Amino acid sequence: MTFLKNAWYVAAWSTEVEVGKLLSRRLLDEPVVIYRDPDGCARALTDRCPHRFAPLSMGRLVDGVLQCPYHGLRFDGSGDCVHNPHGPVPRAARVRSFPLAERYSAIWIWMGDPDKAAESAIPEFDFLVPEQWYVGTGHMAIDGGYELEIDNILDLSHIEFLHPLFSSDAVSRGEIKCGQEGDTVWSRRYIRDDSPPPFIYQAFNIPQGNLVDRWLDVRWQAPALMALWTGGVAAGRSREDGVNVPSAHLFTPETASRTHYFYAMSFPHALGPAGEVMARENVEVLRQPFVHEDKPIIEAVARSMSGADFWSLKPVLLRGDEAAVRARRILEKRIASERASAEASRQVAGPR
Amino acid sequence: MTFLKNAWYVAAWSTEVEVGKLLSRRLLDEPVVIYRDPDGCARALTDRCPHRFAPLSMGRLVDGVLQCPYHGLRFDGSGDCVHNPHGPVPRAARVRSFPLAERYSAIWIWMGDPDKAAESAIPEFDFLVPEQWYVGTGHMAIDGGYELEIDNILDLSHIEFLHPLFSSDAVSRGEIKCGQEGDTVWSRRYIRDDSPPPFIYQAFNIPQGNLVDRWLDVRWQAPALMALWTGGVAAGRSREDGVNVPSAHLFTPETASRTHYFYAMSFPHALGPAGEVMARENVEVLRQPFVHEDKPIIEAVARSMSGADFWSLKPVLLRGDEAAVRARRILEKRIASERASAEASRQVAGPR
Amino acid sequence: MTFLKNAWYVAAWSTEVEVGKLLSRRLLDEPVVIYRDPDGCARALTDRCPHRFAPLSMGRLVDGVLQCPYHGLRFDGSGDCVHNPHGPVPRAARVRSFPLAERYSAIWIWMGDPDKAAESAIPEFDFLVPEQWYVGTGHMAIDGGYELEIDNILDLSHIEFLHPLFSSDAVSRGEIKCGQEGDTVWSRRYIRDDSPPPFIYQAFNIPQGNLVDRWLDVRWQAPALMALWTGGVAAGRSREDGVNVPSAHLFTPETASRTHYFYAMSFPHALGPAGEVMARENVEVLRQPFVHEDKPIIEAVARSMSGADFWSLKPVLLRGDEAAVRARRILEKRIASERASAEASRQVAGPR
Repeated sequence: MTFLKNAWYVAAWSTEVEVGKLLSRRLLDEPVVIYRDPDGCARALTDRCPHRFAPLSMGRLVDGVLQCPYHGLRFDGSGDCVHNPHGPVPRAARVRSFPLAERYSAIWIWMGDPDKAAESAIPEFDFLVPEQWYVGTGHMAIDGGYELEIDNILDLSHIEFLHPLFSSDAVSRGEIKCGQEGDTVWSRRYIRDDSPPPFIYQAFNIPQGNLVDRWLDVRWQAPALMALWTGGVAAGRSREDGVNVPSAHLFTPETASRTHYFYAMSFPHALGPAGEVMARENVEVLRQPFVHEDKPIIEAVARSMSGADFWSLKPVLLRGDEAAVRARRILEKRIASERASAEASRQVAGPR
Repeated sequence: MTFLKNAWYVAAWSTEVEVGKLLSRRLLDEPVVIYRDPDGCARALTDRCPHRFAPLSMGRLVDGVLQCPYHGLRFDGSGDCVHNPHGPVPRAARVRSFPLAERYSAIWIWMGDPDKAAESAIPEFDFLVPEQWYVGTGHMAIDGGYELEIDNILDLSHIEFLHPLFSSDAVSRGEIKCGQEGDTVWSRRYIRDDSPPPFIYQAFNIPQGNLVDRWLDVRWQAPALMALWTGGVAAGRSREDGVNVPSAHLFTPETASRTHYFYAMSFPHALGPAGEVMARENVEVLRQPFVHEDKPIIEAVARSMSGADFWSLKPVLLRGDEAAVRARRILEKRIASERASAEASRQVAGPR
Repeated sequence: MTFLKNAWYVAAWSTEVEVGKLLSRRLLDEPVVIYRDPDGCARALTDRCPHRFAPLSMGRLVDGVLQCPYHGLRFDGSGDCVHNPHGPVPRAARVRSFPLAERYSAIWIWMGDPDKAAESAIPEFDFLVPEQWYVGTGHMAIDGGYELEIDNILDLSHIEFLHPLFSSDAVSRGEIKCGQEGDTVWSRRYIRDDSPPPFIYQAFNIPQGNLVDRWLDVRWQAPALMALWTGGVAAGRSREDGVNVPSAHLFTPETASRTHYFYAMSFPHALGPAGEVMARENVEVLRQPFVHEDKPIIEAVARSMSGADFWSLKPVLLRGDEAAVRARRILEKRIASERASAEASRQVAGPR
């Protein structure tokens, strides 16, 4: 499976790109340097000088433009060379720039055809709007393909086995509803009369001893953008009376076999300063099972598959796999369609 | 050279597989998980869940069956899925199980056609029977193909150069007899009137100063199972009056370029408790030259060959190579014959 | 690009090959062992025994010949096996020996057709003759192809950006003259009225505050042998009145993607004992920017190119690139011609 190109990916959390700093990140197997121009506007260029191929991210910003560390060529945010200390600027001296959008606390990048980069195509993540939510964010890299992360988040039946902090054996008895609206996939899990571990009582503000009705609702959009609402209420009461905490699980391929994991957890401004503390602390709590429980399994699965195509391994499918299989099918269809268009364009253009 | 499949390999020493523990080991380039069922009987399964390909060895034993760490499917010792917490057990949910036999202090595995797995085909290693011998065992991994280990053990002329603790320059003057009985190869080395280093006098219980008659007799059986009898007696006396210490050198490919080395040294129960101490201490003494003298050379040879076929490098052959060359020829013939049968079966079965 | 074979490469500095020691070094992707015979004459053999392929460099010198660590075969400096402890010496028992020449403080190796190895083809490096110069030498390995090192030294416009210790922004305003005489390429850079950093005033013995006229003259000869004269004089005075320090930058491929860097800096004996101190200290000063400034960039460039052919990446060319482009073209032509001759010889010889 190659990458979906005409799609928005998270390149970084907004806070990761500081004024005056250069962030180097491999995205969809291409080297990218990200920085802010003098107006604070994020910019992304191919992280390779067209002269002698030094990474521009090893250079520095001079008068708001990016100077190559090796021979001092300077490139502006559009990728044009604007200064050659050794003579006139050669016409071919430019690097690719990528459309960016800063929204939902993140910097989104479009690595396909720039003419197709409409900001309106960024999926909605209202709970990441910093004007209304305290958003705790984190980033880690996983040695496994991003498809394995889709499987992980869209089938949360694994929490019963991987995450004792969050789960009881009621999870596997829960009701699962899988839905699809256009290219959006939903996996909704509802667990009645659970006796969860103490952490859950505390998180959902329910007195210990009560039975709990819990839910885990996940929304997937291509390529690997997932929102998860996890909540609970004293058993039998209306869901609206309960606590419902949104989190984001946004994956960007670093290469075919390594993935950036951007995660976030949000609490509304209505909670006051306590909400800010909760966002910061809870996202750190969340990081622990990601690092110590999910990451080792996903990386072991990647090693176990050793590069083989998923379907060629003839996976046994269970009830909880429906959503992830739908997501994979949508991705495969969109990637195939992208390829077919590219092929058609090449034929129209004729041989070069 | 591919692996010989229809053959018994050592998967582990018996003591390495503890009740309640899971041992993960790559054997013949396949991931295998080994454990004991509630009756203490050793079991081996492919170490990869057929659902999402997590290593089963990262899971745990529940009621004597193996539970996948990721989504909790459970597999019994035959490889059948016996529990799916999320619904009915899918018919396809099974993993491959491998015939095992526990004999001669080791757990033997058969990774070829299970219908051909006759325990009687395990070569005899009487001196590893724990009811009659104190058996000191060890295991290490070598970054080199198992064929290099056959060369190493079947041509012990190297001890003169690699192992000053064990050898004198009389070794190269020794008499060598190479023999073959069916698919069993013998290399017998006899050294008369040696003045060996002090360790040898002590090991063979001969007063220092005496000349020594020594022998090194190696028996090879496919794929890479070697017994070595090393002994000595005061020069001129009958071999039967001397000391004759058996050791085992059993190699199992981890991959084509990495090898498990299972070694053991035995002393008879007749020696009483002192024999147990000798087994434990001597196998540890033996480990030192393996780690510090043989392993570096064999790994350097492997790097030097960098994956090339042995014969394609046109090795110069010396007198001491006859046994190892015979062993390689037998292996090559058996592997070729296995391939031809597999090819014939495929043709009878017709296209799929 | 494959390697130029019929050419002299530096295998080691003379001082690196000590009497009684074995130096193992991969050169042009072949393992080579270098040592001195009892006459002190340097010898180089393929570092792989033809019997069981152990590296001879893991063995030792016995009576002035090289003994294999594994089974004790001994090879003389011509590569012939002169002793087999296990029987007669097999006729095929020989390793390749390489023509060597010790000159200009270095041991030069010829890895192509030995019949073409004329010492007169070693480029002249008079300032490395230890009878007349104090020569400070150093060696390091770079994870990048040797062609990147040619680019680095032949275009010293990079010193303005990489090496603040040596450079000012006057460098890019300097006059550049590129010349070619046969297969020798020159790049001459002249900078008038510079205000260099303090290190340069001190090195060229010019009172601070004066303007300085500086030069950087580089001579390249295949495969990657460069002499650099760097000098300066108070502005307006004759170049002959100034200081002119020669250094050598000699590169030998370890593999296609890793390079040995042999560097040296010389001061004439006429300076007396102070010259010796200067050679030793200045070569150490020189090492710092090599390690901390050039090496990281060159290795990043190599990663950035990830094995692609240089021209296929369509490099933008600047004024300073002319010399390196000429050098690359000469190399490409000589390598192509070498291949064509080899091909022609094979056709004359007929099929084997």
